[in-house]
Parts: sequence; structure tokens; C-alpha cells
Amino acid sequence: SVTLFGVVDASISSYSSTSRDLHGATLLNPFYLNQGSVKVSRRELANSGYNSSRLGFRGTEDLGGGLAASFWLEAPIKNDDGSEGVATFNRRSTVSLSGGFGEVRLGRDYTPTFWNNTVFDPFGTNGVGTNLIQTAAGDFGHPTRASNTIGYFLPPNLGGFYGQLQYGFSEKTKYSPGLATPDVANNSRTGRNIAGRFGYANGPLDVAVAYGSSTVGDQFYVGTTTKINTLNLGASYDFGPVKLFGEVSKSKNKVDYEVTPFAGGRPDVDLTGYLLGVTVPVGAGLIRASYSHVKYDNNAPVVLFAPEVADPKANKLALGYVHNLSKRTALYATIARVSNKNGAALTVGGPAFISNAVFTPKNSTGYDFGIRHAF
Amino acid sequence: SVTLFGVVDASISSYSSTSRDLHGATLLNPFYLNQGSVKVSRRELANSGYNSSRLGFRGTEDLGGGLAASFWLEAPIKNDDGSEGVATFNRRSTVSLSGGFGEVRLGRDYTPTFWNNTVFDPFGTNGVGTNLIQTAAGDFGHPTRASNTIGYFLPPNLGGFYGQLQYGFSEKTKYSPGLATPDVANNSRTGRNIAGRFGYANGPLDVAVAYGSSTVGDQFYVGTTTKINTLNLGASYDFGPVKLFGEVSKSKNKVDYEVTPFAGGRPDVDLTGYLLGVTVPVGAGLIRASYSHVKYDNNAPVVLFAPEVADPKANKLALGYVHNLSKRTALYATIARVSNKNGAALTVGGPAFISNAVFTPKNSTGYDFGIRHAF
Amino acid sequence: SVTLFGVVDASISSYSSTSRDLHGATLLNPFYLNQGSVKVSRRELANSGYNSSRLGFRGTEDLGGGLAASFWLEAPIKNDDGSEGVATFNRRSTVSLSGGFGEVRLGRDYTPTFWNNTVFDPFGTNGVGTNLIQTAAGDFGHPTRASNTIGYFLPPNLGGFYGQLQYGFSEKTKYSPGLATPDVANNSRTGRNIAGRFGYANGPLDVAVAYGSSTVGDQFYVGTTTKINTLNLGASYDFGPVKLFGEVSKSKNKVDYEVTPFAGGRPDVDLTGYLLGVTVPVGAGLIRASYSHVKYDNNAPVVLFAPEVADPKANKLALGYVHNLSKRTALYATIARVSNKNGAALTVGGPAFISNAVFTPKNSTGYDFGIRHAF
Repeated sequence: SVTLFGVVDASISSYSSTSRDLHGATLLNPFYLNQGSVKVSRRELANSGYNSSRLGFRGTEDLGGGLAASFWLEAPIKNDDGSEGVATFNRRSTVSLSGGFGEVRLGRDYTPTFWNNTVFDPFGTNGVGTNLIQTAAGDFGHPTRASNTIGYFLPPNLGGFYGQLQYGFSEKTKYSPGLATPDVANNSRTGRNIAGRFGYANGPLDVAVAYGSSTVGDQFYVGTTTKINTLNLGASYDFGPVKLFGEVSKSKNKVDYEVTPFAGGRPDVDLTGYLLGVTVPVGAGLIRASYSHVKYDNNAPVVLFAPEVADPKANKLALGYVHNLSKRTALYATIARVSNKNGAALTVGGPAFISNAVFTPKNSTGYDFGIRHAF
Repeated sequence: SVTLFGVVDASISSYSSTSRDLHGATLLNPFYLNQGSVKVSRRELANSGYNSSRLGFRGTEDLGGGLAASFWLEAPIKNDDGSEGVATFNRRSTVSLSGGFGEVRLGRDYTPTFWNNTVFDPFGTNGVGTNLIQTAAGDFGHPTRASNTIGYFLPPNLGGFYGQLQYGFSEKTKYSPGLATPDVANNSRTGRNIAGRFGYANGPLDVAVAYGSSTVGDQFYVGTTTKINTLNLGASYDFGPVKLFGEVSKSKNKVDYEVTPFAGGRPDVDLTGYLLGVTVPVGAGLIRASYSHVKYDNNAPVVLFAPEVADPKANKLALGYVHNLSKRTALYATIARVSNKNGAALTVGGPAFISNAVFTPKNSTGYDFGIRHAF
Repeated sequence: SVTLFGVVDASISSYSSTSRDLHGATLLNPFYLNQGSVKVSRRELANSGYNSSRLGFRGTEDLGGGLAASFWLEAPIKNDDGSEGVATFNRRSTVSLSGGFGEVRLGRDYTPTFWNNTVFDPFGTNGVGTNLIQTAAGDFGHPTRASNTIGYFLPPNLGGFYGQLQYGFSEKTKYSPGLATPDVANNSRTGRNIAGRFGYANGPLDVAVAYGSSTVGDQFYVGTTTKINTLNLGASYDFGPVKLFGEVSKSKNKVDYEVTPFAGGRPDVDLTGYLLGVTVPVGAGLIRASYSHVKYDNNAPVVLFAPEVADPKANKLALGYVHNLSKRTALYATIARVSNKNGAALTVGGPAFISNAVFTPKNSTGYDFGIRHAF
């Protein structure tokens, strides 16, 4: 009644990120010597270049009358150096009750908005090919998974329509009366996640919209609550010889004030992005390609006479090939390049850019060449 | 030859603990304004509300001639947030050789005294219903499990009599001559556990007595050894429509002096408790209820003219219902309330009481509402 | 398609290490009072006295055409106290592709030089009987395993010849231009492992030579690279009633200078050792014995008029008996004694020697008495 399953994925991977001196001679500094460029690079035996390495235990019990109980415990593993075994079930850890009404699922699970990022990415958010929407979401604070959640999933028999709702407890201590709240750690709402996803999959078409709101900070006495709200829409269409993918996404880092400050408060920070992708089956193989783009907007107020600060943005091109030796075992190769503008510092992986007063992050390139074995 | 087994138990749980200002106007402070009460509370997705969440591996090999070798490796898991996988085998980790002579078991195992606390508790020491004897034992220092033990179990064919002995090594370095012992960490006996349990189970009756002595501290140069000694007796009787449970327990925190101090040394601290419980099968369900009581006694010497310090004590009422969807899957609900007196601060779970010069811990209430799935 | 396997090995083990005051009355200190000896000892419930306790997952998939994919994830476990479960796969964590060409293996694996240390040791480098070559290798810095490796193994059908090559990435960040390297952590080569092993096994004979070079430190700006290079040769011959084992080993801790210092740089530190062993099958049992010897040589330059510093050295005698209750379950007993000279401080296990201006490490003795159960 227990299924043991997993993925062991290892690759030779290389990352190289170049920063450039964008300064030149000016009236004030007529003899400025441009410092050229500086590169950080690393070659590794990496894991999870095509599929995330994992080890899991799952099972389902038929309770009769259409009812079923099931569990899913899945650990991330690091097979390149063996440093992480089944130490946690951080990938997924749930117990469910399902029936004609759908499924109620308790525990740690993926966020609905992450599903759109990964399902509509030809590279499935793994390896150097991971789309920029997902790469940027990590730093921006939008979670891939949420803990302590109650989830509800629509039943599978709705003519192609599917959907889910997710609520994650903040699990913070509350004080009553409120003035008994300690000065420090007065953040009783931080950690809460509310999200949902609704889609339609029928024949070659799959399209879904997702929304998620994560409370990433709050201060009881100051009266502020900081949230990351994300709305995205993804779709794929399988023409047979070619499958197309697309996604648009908008995230907002927003501070809610109980008492609006006189100056209006901190402006929202926006992160928008889109993704276009394609996969082409070739015999036992699959060609994969994607183009993704993100832009940050600090919504900084315009200051008279000061030069407008340009929005950081980046785009990425990824190209890969997967050769299936069997259903469970595949060889793969991926190359990717990120181009950053106006201070964005996104990489394909590996060490962070050198970023200081002299050098500005520019291009990051890398490759994965590996094997994925599932069991 | 390996059995993979486990429990995934998740519940929506809530805890609420209220402290009260017990001070009033006095001659010295005639205008004292009573501060009323202050409450800490938390709502969670919790684990292990009915049975402890776990994942384990066990097996037995028949060696012929009635002899068998077996192993048992059982990990506690946190399935509500996935933060603990199979990181340790802290629940149990043993290898055994058994035959007509009984069983010799090596490794980490439950203490004999804990068995009485859990076997004769209708709530099995899980969730908000856990009896107060066990709740208090944790803080008092009496262990639920012991590491590095050699255990012996009587064979199962003794007409209902059963029993076990347990010795746990302290695993501390000894120095010879003794004066070579370093000034710090001169605690070569700390960590040792000696315990035993003897019982009789036949038909509807089960009764057992257990004793355990844990060395929780010692100082070579001072010449003191601190032990927690626990003696308890539990019994259950299954009348069919109703099953009754009962336990009495006495623990003592005792300092042994190699040279008795002039003033007689620190008095022992006592913890006594009792438990009454009942379960009532109702179709596929089971009603559970228990009342438990504990009292601390510091055996403080009487001081002339000073008011006697009253002994801290607490009692608890727990009520629950388990609905079995199958042998492996159950829904459950439990509510419980702890009432503290004279400074005792036991809760049903969740955040600790606010306890300071103004507020004294009083009542703690909580509930679990969840699902237990075993595999 | 997944095999779950493991070993649970527990023993009652005792270690005792005695240091002696080797000073006496001298002209300068005619009334020196010899302090005699001082002993540290410990008794434990230990694990891995005969075979290393472990839990693992492995499997092989036939890909057709002689090709196969396989994985091996093996965790060390601590079953005496349950403190380590499947937290890591530090013992081995690999994915392989194999066929007529041999096997390509990616991940964390044993070093080739360790194979010789363990395969030609009657005690298999476990418990108090572990040979001194392996005991000393640990402190000396030669690794038992290497992470992030690419390994190649010869196919099995070469008439008894076998062999492997191993390359382990350092996985350090490189900076270009090199002057962009930070002052601290300028050690881009540290962590690299290069090794190989080549042998011949046919009928009663098995003989193998192995070489390994591990970069254990480097400083970019100083221009030094520190390596541990090990060469060893082992052999065994099974006469039937008796099986003989032997190994010779030489390790060198060597500093490479980009610019040779005027004084010639730090001399190499050498560690040489040999091992002689024997096993004698006796019914369901096996008698095991070994003698091993190691010597350190600091290659210190001779200083005029100063007394020559004698090379630290140690030898060890180990004797044991294994009684197989079945293929999977065995009882075992081992005793061992290490004799140290000239400041060597090797033990059979347990607490380290007391070593200071007065006391010099001399003898270490110990025993294991336990059970090994494999599944």
C-alpha cells in the first residue's frame, strides 16, 4: 500500500556571469579608465537539471462509496554530493480525503501560482532553462510551496474544468488584549497564504489562471502588512508536431497601512513577466526552447530635474534537447543566456554577479548536460 | 523482508491559555487596579493529534530453532509543514535477538514508565487530550525514550505475565585516577537510565507497574548526583460496552550527596498524579474521556511566621470522538481544558502562558479536529 | 524497481587509552617526581562494529541493447541512539549508465584508494579492529569518499582485470581576470579529487593498485596548493582453510609552490603503512586477525647539535571472531590493541588520549561485542 518513488538527476553544469564597467570619461572625470569586464564562473556536478531529484512515499486507500484517503511525502535530495537525504518532506507532505465532492488536502503543498509557472514552461522550471518569471519570483518573495495549508481541489469529472483553493495558516501567537503583544515579533499575520487556480484542459488545449497572496511581513504596532500578490495566466496548445506554451504574470509587493501615512506610503513594487515556449518531438527526443522576459517597476515618484531611473529588466533565451532512453531514463542538454539591463542581476544559476560601483551585471550563460533516472 | 509503515496525522488545532491578575487592593496598596486577564492563543495545522506521525522500516528474520533477529527503525515526521522527514530514528531504533528466552533488544527505545503513561491513557498521550501525568513528566525530566540501551523482554508465553528491564549507558568518558577528571563536564554518570516494568494481561484486564531512574546530572568534584525516579501503576478493564482506565504515578527529583551537607541538602521535589479514563465504542466510532490530576511538592521547610507556600497543582478534563472510516483511516475531534492552581502552568499545547509578577497562569483550552491515515 | 536494503549493527564496546609520564630525574631537575600514567575510558552501546549501519535505496533499469541505468542512494544511520536517520546519502549517492563500454557513474562515491584499505582488511575498516592505515588516513586528510565525481569503471568481462577512474569537481567559483579573486577564500582548486584503481581478481587471488590525489588547500595569491597523494597496493589469496591479506600504503602531504621559496618550502609529510591479515573459517564462524603498522615522517631538516626528532609510529594487533546465525545475521567479538611511539596518538576508538607536557600517549585497547543484522 506504499509506493516508493523518486528521481535521480545529475548533470555536468557550467555557469558564467559577466559584469561590465559602463562608465566612461565625463567632464568631471575626463581621464576615467574603463575597467572592462569581470566574469565569475563555476563548473559543477549538479543535480535536478531536467527533473528535480527527489525520494518519496505515497499511497491511496479505497474507503468505499467513492471515498479515498491518500498521503504523499516527498523529499528533495542532493545526489551530486549526497549531502541531503530524506531529511525533510519539503517538496510535498500531505494527507487527503477525496470523493465525489473533490479532494481536501492538508499539509505542505505547491502554491497554485507556481503551477502556472512550471506547467507552461517547456523546461518545467528546472536547470539553466528555467523561465525568468520563476527565477525572479524567488527573490521577489512569492513562494513555490506553502506550509500548514488546507487545500480544496475540484473533482476530475467537470468536463475539462479544474480548480483548487489553498489557505495556509500563519501559525503565529495572538494576544488578547492586543496591547499584550510583545514589542518584538508582533507579526501575527506573517506567513499566511491564500491562493487559487482555475483552468480548462481538453484535447490539445490547457489554459489556467491563478492568484496568490502571501503575507510576508507585518508589524502590529506600526499597523502595516506587507503582501506579495501574484496573478498569472498560462496556456499551452499541442499541435502535434509542435506544442506551444505561453504565460503572463504580474506580482506586486504591497504595503497595507492601517493609517495611511501623510506622504502616501511606500509605492508598490511591481514585477511583470511573460514567457513564450515551444517543444518539438523528434523520434525518441524532444527539442525545447523558450524566451522569457521580466521587468521590475519601483513606481518611484518623479523628482524634478533628476534623471528618471530606468526600470531593471531582463530577458532569457533557452534551448535544449532531451533524448529518452526509456520512459524513466533520459539524457539531456540545455544552454541558456540571460541579458540584464538597468541593474537587473538574474543569472542562469551558479555564483552571483559581481555588482558594485564599478561593475554592472550584464550577461549570464550556462549549460547542463546530464542524465535523469526516475524510479 | 522489509516492511515500510507509517502514520500521517493532520489536524486543525487551536490553543488558548489565559492568565489572571489575582492581586487586589491591600492595606499597603489600597488603590491597586486589577489588570484582569490576558490570553495567548494560536490556531495551527498541526500533526499527531490522534496518533504520532511517523515513517518506519522494520523486519524479522527467522533464524530457525525458535530464534529470530529483527530490527525496527522509526522516524518522527512533521507532515503539516514537511520540515522533518526521516532525519532521525528518534522514535525507535533497535535490533533484537529473540527466542524461547525472551528478547534482547539494543538501541533507542521507549522507557518502561512511559508505557504505563500511554497505554492506560484513552488519548494515548497524543493531542490536546494527553493526560497531565505525561505532560508534566516532560518538564520534570522523566524521559519518554532512552538511547544506547540494552533491553530484555520476557517471552510472550507466560500465562499473561509480561515484563521488561532496560539499561541505558551514560556513554561518558571516565578518568583514572579520578583527579584527572577535567573541572568542566565532570559528569560521568549523567545520561544513565535504569528501568523495568512488570504486568499481567488476560482477557479484559491489563495491569502493570513500572519503575525508572534517570540520572539527569552529576558533579564529580561536588559529589552530587541528581536523579529522576518514577514509579507508576496503571490498569485497564474492558467491560465491553465501556472500557475503564486508571493510573497513579509518583516522580521524585532527588539529589544524592556523597558528603551530606550540614543543612541536609536540597529537599526532594515530588510530582504525583493520577488519571481516570473511559472509552465507549459507538458503531464505527469511539468516545473517549479522561480526567487527570498532578501536584508538585517542593517539600520546602516550614519557615516561622512566613505563610506556607501552597503546592502547585492542575487538573484536566478531555473529551473526544474518533470516527473510523476504515482500520487505517479515521476522523477525530478532541476538546480539553486544564485548570492550574498555585502557579502551575500546564497547557493543552500551543504557546506558553503569560506568567509574571502581575499575571498568574489559570486555564488552558484547546481542540484538535483532524484525520489520521496509517500505512 | 526499487530495492530497500540496510544494515543494523549494534555492539557493546569499550575503549581505554593510557598515557604515560616518560620524564625522569635529570641534572637540571634532580627531584622530578614521575606522575605515572593516566587513563581515559568509555563504555558504549555503539553502532557499526562489524558492518557499517546503513539504509539505502537502489535499482537498475534494463534499457535494452546491453545498456542499463541504475541508481544507488545509501545513508549512514546511527541505530544506537537513533540520532541519525536518512538525513544524508553520504555513504553513496550515484546514478549510472552502463553497457559494453563499462559504467559511467555520477555523484558521491568511495575513493579508489579506500577500496584497497577496506577490501584487503580482514576487519573491513569497521570497529576496533580497523587497520591503522585507514585509521591514520582520516586524520591525515585522505578521503574515504568524494563528492561531485564523474567515475568510469571498466566492464566486468576483461578476464579478471578490473579498474576505475574518478574525477571530483572542486566546485569553486573562478574569477576572470584572476585579480578579481577576493582576498579571502581564494581557494578555487580546493576540493578536487583525482584517482584511479586497477586490479586483477581470478580464482583465489585478488590484487589491486590504487592512486589518489586530493587537493585539500590552496591560496591563489600566495601561490600554493596543498595535496594529499596516496599510493597503495593490496592483495589477498584464499588458500581455502586460510585466507591471507596484505597491503602497503604511502601517503604524502605536499605543498606545491608556484614560486619556490628561497629556503625550499615546507618539507613533505609522509605517512607509510603496511597491513598483514588472516581469516580462518571455522564452521559457521570466521576467525579474523590482523597486524598493521604506520609511521609518520616529517622530513625535518637535520639541525646541527640538536637531537634528531624520532618519527612517530604505531602498530596494532586485532583479533576477532564472527559467528553467522544466518547469511544476514551474525554475532561478533573483536579485541584490539594499539601501541604508540614517539608521540603518535592513534586509538582503537573512543575518547582521545590525554596528551600534554607531562603525559605521552602509549597504549589503546578496546573490544566490540555485538550483533549485525542485514536486510
